[in-house]
Amino acid sequence: MSDVFCLIANGDIPCAKVYEDDDVLAFLDLSQVTTGHTLVIPKKHCANILEADDETVERVFKVARNIGKALMKMGAKGVNILANANEAAGQTVFHFHVHVIPRTGNDENLVMAFKEHDTSSIDFKALANEINSNL
Amino acid sequence: MSDVFCLIANGDIPCAKVYEDDDVLAFLDLSQVTTGHTLVIPKKHCANILEADDETVERVFKVARNIGKALMKMGAKGVNILANANEAAGQTVFHFHVHVIPRTGNDENLVMAFKEHDTSSIDFKALANEINSNL
Repeated sequence: MSDVFCLIANGDIPCAKVYEDDDVLAFLDLSQVTTGHTLVIPKKHCANILEADDETVERVFKVARNIGKALMKMGAKGVNILANANEAAGQTVFHFHVHVIPRTGNDENLVMAFKEHDTSSIDFKALANEINSNL
Repeated sequence: MSDVFCLIANGDIPCAKVYEDDDVLAFLDLSQVTTGHTLVIPKKHCANILEADDETVERVFKVARNIGKALMKMGAKGVNILANANEAAGQTVFHFHVHVIPRTGNDENLVMAFKEHDTSSIDFKALANEINSNL
């Protein structure tokens, strides 16, 4: 696979590198939804978190946490750590990546809201059991 | 600490349980921002992902991935996996939890948008170096 993040991991496209080890690369997202917005990727291609093996999940999220902590040291008041899988979830580059988004409480370019709504028609126990049976 | 998720992990408050092992519990979020919306928590208290040790990060996100895969088997078209750290990032319960949110492409109760904006004032290389130096 040669998606754009494979090319970045391979050094064929430049990036503003935040962190690198043998397996993981972190670099600034060009969109900078907030200043410091960083992407963490495995160098080895996989399409998204759902296709990532255990080691890849472990390595990528530990680096994401560490970058979150660094952003807090730099003055962030909070951090969102987000992986989107598939287009329906907002994924646009199909190489597993985790967004690390520092928050200041005044982040006008990022909208993230859960709207309250009626959940009375949901059978919670049956739904939980159905998910469990698909694990 | 006795936050509400500690009480759920301890069995003192009921939940719609999706998965449980010695270290991790997953249960339906009462808000059900989309149907199937699940929270994954470590049983051992820590306030958020920034305070979680390596093992906790590994265990929680592997379970989150597995639940995402189960939701896809049940018909989801995509999944968001999200950890919010601190109030400025939308965290409301201060016990580390990961949201697993199935997406169908028609998810009217969830708003998640990155607005395009001018990033020309950002010195990407200097910013990346500053984050790296805080790791």
